[in-house]
Amino acid sequence: MNVEIITVGDELLLGYTVDTNSSYIARQLGAAGFTVRYKTSVGDSLDAMEEAFQLALKRSHIVIVTGGLGPTDDDLTKRAIVKVFKRNLIFHEEILEDLRIRFAKRGLEMPAINQNQALLPQAAEFFPNKYGSAVGICIAEHGRVFISLPGVPLEMQQILDDEVVPYLERLKLNSSIHVATLRTTGIFESALAEKIKPGLRLEPGVRLAYLPGFSGVDLRVMASAADPEEGAQKAGKLVDYLERTVGKYIYGRDSETLEAIIGQLLGDNDKTLGVAESCTAGQLGMIITSVPGSSRYFFGGVLAYANDVKVNQLGVSPELLNEQGAVSEECAVAMAQGCRSLLGTDYALSITGIAGPEGGSNEKPVGTSYIGLASAHAARARLFNFGTERHAIRARASYAALEMLRREILDIK
Amino acid sequence: MNVEIITVGDELLLGYTVDTNSSYIARQLGAAGFTVRYKTSVGDSLDAMEEAFQLALKRSHIVIVTGGLGPTDDDLTKRAIVKVFKRNLIFHEEILEDLRIRFAKRGLEMPAINQNQALLPQAAEFFPNKYGSAVGICIAEHGRVFISLPGVPLEMQQILDDEVVPYLERLKLNSSIHVATLRTTGIFESALAEKIKPGLRLEPGVRLAYLPGFSGVDLRVMASAADPEEGAQKAGKLVDYLERTVGKYIYGRDSETLEAIIGQLLGDNDKTLGVAESCTAGQLGMIITSVPGSSRYFFGGVLAYANDVKVNQLGVSPELLNEQGAVSEECAVAMAQGCRSLLGTDYALSITGIAGPEGGSNEKPVGTSYIGLASAHAARARLFNFGTERHAIRARASYAALEMLRREILDIK
Repeated sequence: MNVEIITVGDELLLGYTVDTNSSYIARQLGAAGFTVRYKTSVGDSLDAMEEAFQLALKRSHIVIVTGGLGPTDDDLTKRAIVKVFKRNLIFHEEILEDLRIRFAKRGLEMPAINQNQALLPQAAEFFPNKYGSAVGICIAEHGRVFISLPGVPLEMQQILDDEVVPYLERLKLNSSIHVATLRTTGIFESALAEKIKPGLRLEPGVRLAYLPGFSGVDLRVMASAADPEEGAQKAGKLVDYLERTVGKYIYGRDSETLEAIIGQLLGDNDKTLGVAESCTAGQLGMIITSVPGSSRYFFGGVLAYANDVKVNQLGVSPELLNEQGAVSEECAVAMAQGCRSLLGTDYALSITGIAGPEGGSNEKPVGTSYIGLASAHAARARLFNFGTERHAIRARASYAALEMLRREILDIK
Repeated sequence: MNVEIITVGDELLLGYTVDTNSSYIARQLGAAGFTVRYKTSVGDSLDAMEEAFQLALKRSHIVIVTGGLGPTDDDLTKRAIVKVFKRNLIFHEEILEDLRIRFAKRGLEMPAINQNQALLPQAAEFFPNKYGSAVGICIAEHGRVFISLPGVPLEMQQILDDEVVPYLERLKLNSSIHVATLRTTGIFESALAEKIKPGLRLEPGVRLAYLPGFSGVDLRVMASAADPEEGAQKAGKLVDYLERTVGKYIYGRDSETLEAIIGQLLGDNDKTLGVAESCTAGQLGMIITSVPGSSRYFFGGVLAYANDVKVNQLGVSPELLNEQGAVSEECAVAMAQGCRSLLGTDYALSITGIAGPEGGSNEKPVGTSYIGLASAHAARARLFNFGTERHAIRARASYAALEMLRREILDIK
């Protein structure tokens, strides 16, 4: 069964909004065994939407539309549905009542414009929206399923996961493509390829892709086969080979994140963590605590952006700063040690670097960073160069710190 | 002149990667007066790419491809170009030499596989890549321009901005669509619409869109007209109306961010800032320091995730925590005051809340958050409810803190 995704909004064609929705939908439906064949973006125009919906219903079994369900006048999706399916809009009191209650819970009065959100095409099912006012709409007829979801990613995702996927799974055929992802960190794409290539033998229908990101390079294994079992088996062989060849760089599988793995390692061993961040100024702490339940092992930290904070809060000596500079091995070690004793944690990580665009020199160009680690047994720092772009430098430094801790805990050299 | 964007990669159709590239390109080219008519995604298949390239060259003046330029075997774009344009690949020693130097600067040996990166189609121009190994490729023939860029967003963006846009601007026609964005914060989409709608009169060709995000709702004004001047004038009228109606919620224009505005306000007044973060654990600091040069006004802060850190570092009294709880007005005020005196800054912001999924109660459900602000004149906190999803709660809390500071500095009630 083919899926077509249509994202609605002028902002998509003008590029003002990044279309994360179509990828999210493709990923979730792909995992559930559906194949996405077409992705289209149309503007906020009734004619363009009508044309796109008609075409999609002709060539695809399942059509999923996102966007244009808001209460304001630039939201036209429901009007396009009415035209394509020739159905009237019906008022649903229970939807409005639910909205009223939710506004009241937040101590707010519901703006009257939200009454529009209670209008749905006749004989459509609706999927509740936990986080917003626009419910999902589902129309099934003539062997086609047409689903319209809000464009706000958080709301779309909740409805898709909780409602749409279970709904579609009742229609599901077996998957014929098996996907496995091995997540690596601490090694470049090209260096990884050099290790993998010499012994690599790809069976027919099996593919390997290298997908670099700030946290590292994902190795994506894709095996297509007549039946899912054969696909899984073929993929499994390649996964085994990759684990033998570059296993020490692999921290997790599929959607596992480095921060969640760190959380498991700390939690399982009853260890605690603190951070001392200079150039990242909170990004490391934010990543660590993006994991629900991280309060079990994460105590907190110090954002030592100014040197005064390094001295006064973390106990870095002014002489050290004068002689070695804030971006130095010695400073990173002192920050980690200072943080560990200040917070009384088992581990402390520190980051100090030159994120740019200013502040670089010949000796220490932009990107120069030291990551420090202190534990009961060790206090050391490692030099990195994370490139030349501010945003990338800070993100890479944060993940490199997590990788340093992973290797420390697992004793990987 | 019509532009077609083609993004390459199995991961796009499977949804494993979000296609930020096509939006970025559309935005930058839109700003330069080009119209994007088609956006297509194809998988890593030579046949699919060839077909997509042929079709694009038939219907569009400018074709921009991203992805598939890496050194590894799953990167097929150059092979597809060779087939479509019937040109050989030529080795460019200067490209390889430049790569060797860059690896050496980071203290690394260049993996041999990168030699592939020095192969370009005959008679193609190339655009240097500051941040990676794949140069951009440009082929112009028969009144068509075909440009191939790497898929890594950072690299693509740099080449697009520094090379492609200036290149295309030499071919440019005048823009006939004028876009202006007013960025608001501290008010819901529906409440904003209720204030705007009563007096709103839209001229023909003028549109208004509401685009909600974590930092607030953007108001996008789009005016199409025969000539750019008329478009600007039409848009200007609507902008004036919006400024009169909802001006106090507008913090900036177009790509201005709340954090950059805060930076200007602090920098211009020679004021300094510190943060005390509980549930956001660094996100606020990270957002503030995403602005280059933020060390001029941002000193640092304390990540007080555990209550011990609130007590020991920020001086929040254990009695207060016992009686009111960590998520309370009193605690937020004490955190902000403690941070301000600890770091000696003019302002301090604090955030304490329940980010979930655990930790909520009937009295204080998930999403309950207090934002605190301390200055020489004031110390107070405000209650918010930022919804029910962890990621959104933390992001909204961070921006709400910045908005509280903006209003304090500008004395907006």
